[in-house]
Amino acid sequence: MQGQQLRVGLVGAGKMGADHALRIHERISGARLAAVADPDLDRAQQVAGSSGARATADAFEVIDDSDVDALVIASPGAVHEPLLLAALERGVPVLCEKPLTPDAKSSLRVVEAEEARGEHLLQVGFMRRFDAEYGELKRLLDAGELGAPLMLHCVHRNAATPPGFTSEMMIYDSVVHEFDTARWLLGSEIAAVTVRAPKSSSAAPDGLLDPQLVTIETTSGALVDVEIFVNCGFGYQVRCEAVGERGTALIGADGGPLVHRSGNWGGSISDDFRDRFGAAFDREFQRWADAAHRGHADPAAATAWDGYAAAAACEAGVQAQATGTRAEVDLAERPDFYIP
Amino acid sequence: MQGQQLRVGLVGAGKMGADHALRIHERISGARLAAVADPDLDRAQQVAGSSGARATADAFEVIDDSDVDALVIASPGAVHEPLLLAALERGVPVLCEKPLTPDAKSSLRVVEAEEARGEHLLQVGFMRRFDAEYGELKRLLDAGELGAPLMLHCVHRNAATPPGFTSEMMIYDSVVHEFDTARWLLGSEIAAVTVRAPKSSSAAPDGLLDPQLVTIETTSGALVDVEIFVNCGFGYQVRCEAVGERGTALIGADGGPLVHRSGNWGGSISDDFRDRFGAAFDREFQRWADAAHRGHADPAAATAWDGYAAAAACEAGVQAQATGTRAEVDLAERPDFYIP
Amino acid sequence: MQGQQLRVGLVGAGKMGADHALRIHERISGARLAAVADPDLDRAQQVAGSSGARATADAFEVIDDSDVDALVIASPGAVHEPLLLAALERGVPVLCEKPLTPDAKSSLRVVEAEEARGEHLLQVGFMRRFDAEYGELKRLLDAGELGAPLMLHCVHRNAATPPGFTSEMMIYDSVVHEFDTARWLLGSEIAAVTVRAPKSSSAAPDGLLDPQLVTIETTSGALVDVEIFVNCGFGYQVRCEAVGERGTALIGADGGPLVHRSGNWGGSISDDFRDRFGAAFDREFQRWADAAHRGHADPAAATAWDGYAAAAACEAGVQAQATGTRAEVDLAERPDFYIP
Amino acid sequence: MQGQQLRVGLVGAGKMGADHALRIHERISGARLAAVADPDLDRAQQVAGSSGARATADAFEVIDDSDVDALVIASPGAVHEPLLLAALERGVPVLCEKPLTPDAKSSLRVVEAEEARGEHLLQVGFMRRFDAEYGELKRLLDAGELGAPLMLHCVHRNAATPPGFTSEMMIYDSVVHEFDTARWLLGSEIAAVTVRAPKSSSAAPDGLLDPQLVTIETTSGALVDVEIFVNCGFGYQVRCEAVGERGTALIGADGGPLVHRSGNWGGSISDDFRDRFGAAFDREFQRWADAAHRGHADPAAATAWDGYAAAAACEAGVQAQATGTRAEVDLAERPDFYIP
Repeated sequence: MQGQQLRVGLVGAGKMGADHALRIHERISGARLAAVADPDLDRAQQVAGSSGARATADAFEVIDDSDVDALVIASPGAVHEPLLLAALERGVPVLCEKPLTPDAKSSLRVVEAEEARGEHLLQVGFMRRFDAEYGELKRLLDAGELGAPLMLHCVHRNAATPPGFTSEMMIYDSVVHEFDTARWLLGSEIAAVTVRAPKSSSAAPDGLLDPQLVTIETTSGALVDVEIFVNCGFGYQVRCEAVGERGTALIGADGGPLVHRSGNWGGSISDDFRDRFGAAFDREFQRWADAAHRGHADPAAATAWDGYAAAAACEAGVQAQATGTRAEVDLAERPDFYIP
Repeated sequence: MQGQQLRVGLVGAGKMGADHALRIHERISGARLAAVADPDLDRAQQVAGSSGARATADAFEVIDDSDVDALVIASPGAVHEPLLLAALERGVPVLCEKPLTPDAKSSLRVVEAEEARGEHLLQVGFMRRFDAEYGELKRLLDAGELGAPLMLHCVHRNAATPPGFTSEMMIYDSVVHEFDTARWLLGSEIAAVTVRAPKSSSAAPDGLLDPQLVTIETTSGALVDVEIFVNCGFGYQVRCEAVGERGTALIGADGGPLVHRSGNWGGSISDDFRDRFGAAFDREFQRWADAAHRGHADPAAATAWDGYAAAAACEAGVQAQATGTRAEVDLAERPDFYIP
Repeated sequence: MQGQQLRVGLVGAGKMGADHALRIHERISGARLAAVADPDLDRAQQVAGSSGARATADAFEVIDDSDVDALVIASPGAVHEPLLLAALERGVPVLCEKPLTPDAKSSLRVVEAEEARGEHLLQVGFMRRFDAEYGELKRLLDAGELGAPLMLHCVHRNAATPPGFTSEMMIYDSVVHEFDTARWLLGSEIAAVTVRAPKSSSAAPDGLLDPQLVTIETTSGALVDVEIFVNCGFGYQVRCEAVGERGTALIGADGGPLVHRSGNWGGSISDDFRDRFGAAFDREFQRWADAAHRGHADPAAATAWDGYAAAAACEAGVQAQATGTRAEVDLAERPDFYIP
Repeated sequence: MQGQQLRVGLVGAGKMGADHALRIHERISGARLAAVADPDLDRAQQVAGSSGARATADAFEVIDDSDVDALVIASPGAVHEPLLLAALERGVPVLCEKPLTPDAKSSLRVVEAEEARGEHLLQVGFMRRFDAEYGELKRLLDAGELGAPLMLHCVHRNAATPPGFTSEMMIYDSVVHEFDTARWLLGSEIAAVTVRAPKSSSAAPDGLLDPQLVTIETTSGALVDVEIFVNCGFGYQVRCEAVGERGTALIGADGGPLVHRSGNWGGSISDDFRDRFGAAFDREFQRWADAAHRGHADPAAATAWDGYAAAAACEAGVQAQATGTRAEVDLAERPDFYIP
């Protein structure tokens, strides 16, 4: 494997793509960047620059490139579907940043295309599944150490939003992570979503419902509540407490040096999600590259089905937000192909 | 004051009453137990025993006793109304264990009787208002250090329930504390209540909806969520996180020695609420006795109005629990007499 | 007991005395202030003022007063010996603020006088023995839950020193608490003391060795290290970690609300030792008053022997500090009277 | 760089060597294992096995191999000197596991050889310098956020020792890390060492002084105390608290999920140092490989001088342990070549 490095084609050279290029280049073993595509060719060249990879404005050129062994898709969700279908046709492993596609219907088409091909090639970038603390929480739940899980209490906070961030994006971009972790931790599909908002923070841009309280019901009968607050002011914070029949477990506590100074004790909080999940991204990519060498997706990762289920939950979430009422999730039947 | 100790009449010699007798006897200054009433005369005598107080089966005998300066009512809520009305008529200060009365209508009658008398004589035993951590949280909020409050996340857990505990009692006996602290911390009335329950814990008695997730809307536009879980198995735990526009504050973290042993780090949890709130009860009683010496209720305590508002919220809570829908709280207009 | 309140005579109306007067007056049950003595009569009158107690400039007048049932001594240590001997002669229970006396020789004379009288009347105000966390640590050690204790790591910090504070006072006034807690927690006498000082903090007054590192050897073979740092700048902090053969336990962690704000998480620290040990003082005084009603010292409190042993350890500590070498503690043989 | 992977020769295929082989193979980017040497050829082959690297029993064969770009030395310290001198002669970058050599004299010869060559090729595997928490502590100190550092309180605990572990090894293998971190954090050399031992734990093997309390004086006038306890029973724990003129900072707090269960709160502790420092090893190796590509040592790593200074401190430590007295560290003058 060391002799033959995995040649990775990167589609999308924005912030996330550039970060992943660096990751492949500098932080994981057994893979190298072979090609970079971005409609903005300059940007593609800049990201390719230091690594010796080719740059192009045409994503399909990278997908069809026979010198590319595997693909990372980090372009906007709106253009994912044709890229994924083309990659499936070529039969290369793909790590697709979330969302799989922006809506349930198109996600389901991708699911069906992968099922038709009969190979697990796609995985969706829900990196929390590779975080050490989430992993330990999953282990505690699966081992039954807390008894059957009944509730999750989740908190998801950002210091501030970039311009143009909308209430819907709070569901699609942020709560989507809780949809996936709830499904993964509880081993259950999402049945319904309710969204409530208190009066909005005066720190939130005009028109943004911030914070919101999202309540999720699962088919297993568990309840999940999520505080999503994207202008909380102080930093990036992700917390999850699982409540089981015999105990609870909380992850996401503050870390780093405990400082005493000037009448205060405590530490600092970063507002960069990469400080919290950087190691998870690294593990996700390393495991993906290892699996891609063998020609398939990492079995530990979120599948196309998981991407579809998250998209369906997001649709219900946005509907619940708009109507103020409980929205049920209407899910297709899960193909045997996606039952582990 | 030391020369003339406050002579306290205790109505109700059950577990709570006996605990308060001990408190008056051993832990606070300037007060002594003068009389104890309980329908079970043996019980009254036992509680009176060590203190030299008189014992009787007739509560009104204690209330009318001219050698009694102030009353503690710790009998079941169902019999509070006539006791409170009699005490108001006599004009003695009363510390009434929650609830003021079991329903909003009767509570309102007590409110109106006190208002008619024109003296603040009654206070309700919401002891959290005297807890150091809740006090500090209130101070942070009132000082604006977190910005305007938007949400509270509350957790209220007991290890196990006594026989006969019902889903309604989870609202009336447990969540009632969160109703009061939400009103007090946020300085706002409760507008509506919603109750959701996941599948119940297998550790809960048959028919008990346990845990439940209670969502509270306040007239100020804040949202409060409460996990009430009375068979959580591991101990008594009360937690509250306030989320403001500029920061958050969490109280109820685990304390005591941090032990490392046998591959584990941590500490122990008691299942006795008195270990958590014993000091708050002491402070509540000391302040009450000090105020009663001067002939009135402690201005820092919950008033009859607060007792009424809590009763109204409980009624909405139980209705929401029964119907599965959002129940609005229908509150009388607040008399000027109760506006601080 | 309630009918006959313990009549307390207070000797010393400085800061500590005034605090204790308030404690007797407002926070404990079954006792009242009957007389206050201070060479500064104004100060005595001020402290007596609100309580109806008599005020005098002559301490012996209070000690000899037949209307005084028990004594609290809060005057400077230098004048304790004659006061204690007079109180022993009268046979009244005494709560003596530390130190018992300022040196081992005079302390031993007090010990011998009490032994001669044959009644346990004296107790020394080492209030940590009544602190909930220290109590729980003691319980863990006594129950063998950590195995045999091998080491204690202690930290004792103050924000800043008052004018005139000397390196010797760091031993006599501050580390004396660690001498007592070490003896009490480990159930062993102190064998030797070593004192090391790094370069002093630029925040410390000229000439003060601050911080210092005190190493204590016990006759049981345990080692105790103490960081004493009285100009640490940020607040009052007392921490103790016991290291046993099978585990460790740490007390003195930071408490209060956990706040997230402005890129930081944490809480605040007070620089007032009463915020940390106020409840311990209350418990100490309540238990003392209860025992004094029965005519003797609280068996849970530090005895005159403990006061003597602490004085001897302080002498060794100051010698070690001055010489830079290890100083052995030269202790008299413990009379049977003081063996529990 | 990706096209030309760094070809690494590994000397020593024991536990540590095998772990590093895996690290090069699977966790870092831009390097591959090219050759493995171990006197036990089977072991060398096993480690080489999966990676396509050559295996040999002769370390010098690997060092002299022109297909090897850089060396990792993970053999016992006793054989390091000739290996390092040979590597210096060939001019290849070396990551040498600690110790540089087992004694100060031989370490100084290595220092002089490197200085003579005039190139920084050697680095010593003090991986704590690459740990995120230590890094943040260093940053706080260097930025002056705590004021000038006065003391460090260190705790270094292992669950249990392997057979044959001696009191001297507690200095050479364990406290050596604290010697290096003290020098690095404080930017100062070690002036003297004192070792005290309480009675030993009954859990320690016969004859082992365990725990010990090591006191370190630095040339800057700071004091460092280290509890080394290698049979503490419960797990691997490394803690460091820096005490500065204006504040303190503590690293090494417990992490992972906070679990409430069965009357307890807390989490679990591993006894594997790789769980604590795995990420630090990864970062150390990645940075080393990146620097080795450019032909020299990582400037952030411990140099040969640091290895020599640690060896000198260990010698003083073992002498202090044997004699029970303070031992001064006798250090050569630091060559300009090693002054950053």
